[in-house]
Amino acid sequence: MEQEIIQYISEYISLEPDEARELARAIPFKACSKGTYLLKEGEISKECYFVLKGLVRQYETVDGDEKTTYFYTEKEALVAFESANEQKPNGFSWVCEEDSVVVVGRFDEMDDFYERHPKMEAFARKFIGQDFSKYQELLSSFVTLSPKERYLALLEKRPDLVHRVPQYQLASFLGIQPETLSRIRRKLATE
Amino acid sequence: MEQEIIQYISEYISLEPDEARELARAIPFKACSKGTYLLKEGEISKECYFVLKGLVRQYETVDGDEKTTYFYTEKEALVAFESANEQKPNGFSWVCEEDSVVVVGRFDEMDDFYERHPKMEAFARKFIGQDFSKYQELLSSFVTLSPKERYLALLEKRPDLVHRVPQYQLASFLGIQPETLSRIRRKLATE
Repeated sequence: MEQEIIQYISEYISLEPDEARELARAIPFKACSKGTYLLKEGEISKECYFVLKGLVRQYETVDGDEKTTYFYTEKEALVAFESANEQKPNGFSWVCEEDSVVVVGRFDEMDDFYERHPKMEAFARKFIGQDFSKYQELLSSFVTLSPKERYLALLEKRPDLVHRVPQYQLASFLGIQPETLSRIRRKLATE
Repeated sequence: MEQEIIQYISEYISLEPDEARELARAIPFKACSKGTYLLKEGEISKECYFVLKGLVRQYETVDGDEKTTYFYTEKEALVAFESANEQKPNGFSWVCEEDSVVVVGRFDEMDDFYERHPKMEAFARKFIGQDFSKYQELLSSFVTLSPKERYLALLEKRPDLVHRVPQYQLASFLGIQPETLSRIRRKLATE
């Protein structure tokens, strides 16, 4: 896993071999079995994560129902910015829906970490930028695309998701009822 | 305006007086009259912006219709990450809907700028984090909230918007038809 982390970071910033070795030792990761919660609604977020392997689902409980608002898979970062920045109880939960391996970043050690590894500040900025563009696009899709078009966009951009999560969670993530998703899928199958 | 920029940056990072003076000189801003485009669909984004004063609307053209996907107002940043990072034509436009004053950041001068003002890298990271949380929340709202609830949340979080933009643009931003927004407003008025 160390090798994978370094390889990934190297896509964003250039690292000398000894810097890479030092980083590999400095970056902590952990294995979490399916069902593990990385964050629960109401807790204050103290850590961010980066998925090396697996799938983490983000959901909010609304009137007793779990509304799935995101699926994080390989090479995606989990950051509950508002809770961490403002030290307020978080509004959603993160639960591993597959056995997962994640890099762990503790917020209270972050400034220290960046001081010891200044290049990582540029990495974080570039990485967050890329991640941001994904959110921008997804957000716009709720205004510019129909539910069917959103489903087709998901199939194109994240084809693996459809096979990794139950249909009712996928429907929730698309902002539609499970029956609507079934209808869309049936219609597409006959087209 | 220099003073406002420095004051704002100081909310995120600590600056010595001479650092602040140097930054104030180094950060370029410009005044744009209503109707000015900061970016047009199909162009490659070369600059990012930060609104000091005014209102910039983001929209995509879908089947000849303008779909409004965001309104940027004071203290908000405009970054077309995907177009800038991947040097590909941008999918949306930015147009000033009020006379505006914006800070301008040229991407090709960014690395240089951070090298000369290393503290600004921490500022960018913190600021983007805060901005990110806004997008996260807005995105989740399309899954967890009804159109009426999304309108109420907007009234609470950005009460000025309702008076600054036409209702049909506001409806588009909320992902609903103008008639639906009228119905919601009428219903709320009688409640």
